[in-house]
Amino acid sequence: MFLPVIDKRKPGSIFRQILNQIIQKIESGAIIDGYQMPPSRELARMLGVNRSTVVKVYEELWALGYVESTPGSYTRVRKRVPLAKITIRDEPQDSVGQSDFPAGLLNSDLYIDPAAYLSVSETTGYIDLQRLVPDTRLIDHKLIQQCFRDVINDPETDPFGYCDIRGFVPLRQNILKHMNLHGIHASDENILMTSGSQNALHLVFQALVSKEDIVVVESPTYSMVIPLLRLMRCKVLEVPVEEDGMDTQILERIFKRHKVKLVYCMPTFHNPTGITMTQEKREALLQICEQYQTLIVEDGFEEEMKYFGKVHLPIKSMDRIGNVIYLGSFSKIFAPGMRTGWIIAHPEIIRKLTNLKTTFDLSSNTMSQAILHQFCQRGGYELHIRKLMRVYRKRMKKALKALKKYIPHGKASWNEPLGGFLIWLQIHSIKKDEDMEKRLRETGVSVGLGKSFFYTEQKGKFIRISISASDEETIIEGIRRLGSALQSL
Amino acid sequence: MFLPVIDKRKPGSIFRQILNQIIQKIESGAIIDGYQMPPSRELARMLGVNRSTVVKVYEELWALGYVESTPGSYTRVRKRVPLAKITIRDEPQDSVGQSDFPAGLLNSDLYIDPAAYLSVSETTGYIDLQRLVPDTRLIDHKLIQQCFRDVINDPETDPFGYCDIRGFVPLRQNILKHMNLHGIHASDENILMTSGSQNALHLVFQALVSKEDIVVVESPTYSMVIPLLRLMRCKVLEVPVEEDGMDTQILERIFKRHKVKLVYCMPTFHNPTGITMTQEKREALLQICEQYQTLIVEDGFEEEMKYFGKVHLPIKSMDRIGNVIYLGSFSKIFAPGMRTGWIIAHPEIIRKLTNLKTTFDLSSNTMSQAILHQFCQRGGYELHIRKLMRVYRKRMKKALKALKKYIPHGKASWNEPLGGFLIWLQIHSIKKDEDMEKRLRETGVSVGLGKSFFYTEQKGKFIRISISASDEETIIEGIRRLGSALQSL
Repeated sequence: MFLPVIDKRKPGSIFRQILNQIIQKIESGAIIDGYQMPPSRELARMLGVNRSTVVKVYEELWALGYVESTPGSYTRVRKRVPLAKITIRDEPQDSVGQSDFPAGLLNSDLYIDPAAYLSVSETTGYIDLQRLVPDTRLIDHKLIQQCFRDVINDPETDPFGYCDIRGFVPLRQNILKHMNLHGIHASDENILMTSGSQNALHLVFQALVSKEDIVVVESPTYSMVIPLLRLMRCKVLEVPVEEDGMDTQILERIFKRHKVKLVYCMPTFHNPTGITMTQEKREALLQICEQYQTLIVEDGFEEEMKYFGKVHLPIKSMDRIGNVIYLGSFSKIFAPGMRTGWIIAHPEIIRKLTNLKTTFDLSSNTMSQAILHQFCQRGGYELHIRKLMRVYRKRMKKALKALKKYIPHGKASWNEPLGGFLIWLQIHSIKKDEDMEKRLRETGVSVGLGKSFFYTEQKGKFIRISISASDEETIIEGIRRLGSALQSL
Repeated sequence: MFLPVIDKRKPGSIFRQILNQIIQKIESGAIIDGYQMPPSRELARMLGVNRSTVVKVYEELWALGYVESTPGSYTRVRKRVPLAKITIRDEPQDSVGQSDFPAGLLNSDLYIDPAAYLSVSETTGYIDLQRLVPDTRLIDHKLIQQCFRDVINDPETDPFGYCDIRGFVPLRQNILKHMNLHGIHASDENILMTSGSQNALHLVFQALVSKEDIVVVESPTYSMVIPLLRLMRCKVLEVPVEEDGMDTQILERIFKRHKVKLVYCMPTFHNPTGITMTQEKREALLQICEQYQTLIVEDGFEEEMKYFGKVHLPIKSMDRIGNVIYLGSFSKIFAPGMRTGWIIAHPEIIRKLTNLKTTFDLSSNTMSQAILHQFCQRGGYELHIRKLMRVYRKRMKKALKALKKYIPHGKASWNEPLGGFLIWLQIHSIKKDEDMEKRLRETGVSVGLGKSFFYTEQKGKFIRISISASDEETIIEGIRRLGSALQSL
């Protein structure tokens, strides 16, 4: 009998040493099919190890399919189904360790790569004027901890179990109440909770848009809607964003020529431009879409963040026939990591979206929704929004002041947003994006680069500044660096 | 000037009363375009209300688009874009309040309705032998609360922010370590975190299967994979599950005739039958799929719950060419409401799935993942599994004993599973499912009905019992009721 050699100085447990040596012998053919393994007690004695270790080894050999045993009989090495010989293709290896992966297993139809559209911040040390994520340091951690305790100890709530397929019912009620403040009067059959706005967008496109359908987006638009539209293979037409919102004259011309299925827009603090659509244009957009029976997807991702002047109510508040689908989210004003958003739409649409949501991931995260509900219930959400308003209004003012101070005359122009987190700069007299990117990297500031916000070609050179993730001092220093980068171009 | 009438006894705030009356006058044409509204101070005096109330009314009128004001000038009723006349179709109304919704807005292509496949328990008062959800009362709430505190107070973790697009890195590490115990030795590039197994299945089908591709499933199979396959419009072929797992001879015949893209299977404690596939069949399945270069999706949803005898390692542990995609989940052994699962697969596949995941919902829930990580880190997960093993082994024993006692001889037959939560009963001498359903309802027990687990027609009448959601006493009483229902048929 072959006896495994145990070396207590070697790394790896004795169990692992014995197991590996036996496997190697079987694999190499040194121990053949049908070979009768010594009883565990005997092998343990021979090796001078605990019997339980050998029992464990035998069990593992069995689980791995190397041996078989019948009650009252010996353990034998079993005959394994010979695995088919694998043909390694002769093609050159493009990366280490993947040469044995048959490419035919992948579906070549799928060609999207969202990486180019994602705002992932670069190496540490950079000032982050890039990511559109709220400053989570502003969250009242103590209150959230209290909310978690409530959720865990409430006998009515099971944060560990599935929630209703349309979302955690009490949170739905809270959101509907909150939507009233924005002029949207909806009832429970109008709401579906989602895993953030991106999930909502996917459900909407998947449920309501077929391949080859025409979808209108603003130009520029939300970067992560672009890979989604490409994946859906719908036809995309772009309408430029002017200083007062989407160009509704161009929109009308499009409608006269094409059958448009859906218009995706961000009327309030548009991403990336920060522009807010006037009431006239909101009405014009709604009027055209009612006339042509076209859906409007209104992304209200920053509805709360109104700092200066007056901002109009959502288009959804004027909806009469149910063609407006409103998207809301906790991601931009509270916590993107809790992946909680919602859709307000006609019950027929909600039913369809719910069917899809259920098929794709059963339902949204109960625990996050239950915590958010408690947070609303205890008044924490209203307080949080008020705090954010105070903080970001100041940050926005400082940012606009810093731009005036540090951006060299004639190098860039920008608009002053009424709220939200974004400022959109048109950069003048630059030939190549790459030059600018390189210079920005050198000065240690990261910003959103214009090209990721255009479905097709961008007209002009642009930069998106987000004031959401950094504090005042850092924003000012970031803009100073941006100014010096532009100066040197 | 028209003066709103305020009635303090009426419900609704004074603000709302004034606002609604003015809107009504404008809408009815009683106040016309260009009408100059009295200054807020004056109107407040006339109405005998606080000026700030009138200011709020004017602001709301402005936000709603009824009035316009320029600095230093009066507020005037504005000319609104007339909304197009809506044609109400003459079709009969099928449900109240939806007659005004243009059906053309919906996409008639989408025809799935997952409701028939969902295990939603019926009215309270029923004994739940239906839902496959873990008993969340077994969770150590105190420890989870401690984990939450840790997560909130750890300066290295931001549970409120986005996590890495492939999931929360420390949890990924924990899971990879854990997978080692099941013979799956993978590294970080092999893992993607998902929002539960359903999300994983959707990503896999969407990424790797095209319309018209052939997918093989077991018959019966996981009910919620059925609407997903219908949505994907792939061709589905079914292979019967025998007492020792999938019929691999039929599988081989299918492979000889068709180009199969993917096989979806649950080798361990198969849902709904509870059957475990033998090592021989695992090897045969792998061998065929290697030979024909076909993907295997191995759903290891209950891998941990091994009570009796020995259960083999996952097929993934034998994978040589990277064609096995393993799905894991915290849903069936911990908390479905935390929507956390994972995929272990070849890096090329993980890259594709990650691109899709990012496009569909950016990333998974950070907070849930961070809590689960802490729970693993503190050893809570191992303890929890051991507790579950003890509890459910006993429940399973009691359930099997109760079946022998209460099911009338010849009325049903079943197999004894090696682990998991499920027992599958074939019911004899019943003509119509409806009769059985009715009788079960009357006796106050809810079970999984066989038909929801078959892609096409079911052969025979079946019931799935789940012991996951109820305690021993309740399970026994439920089975007693089931017995008496069968007796009376």
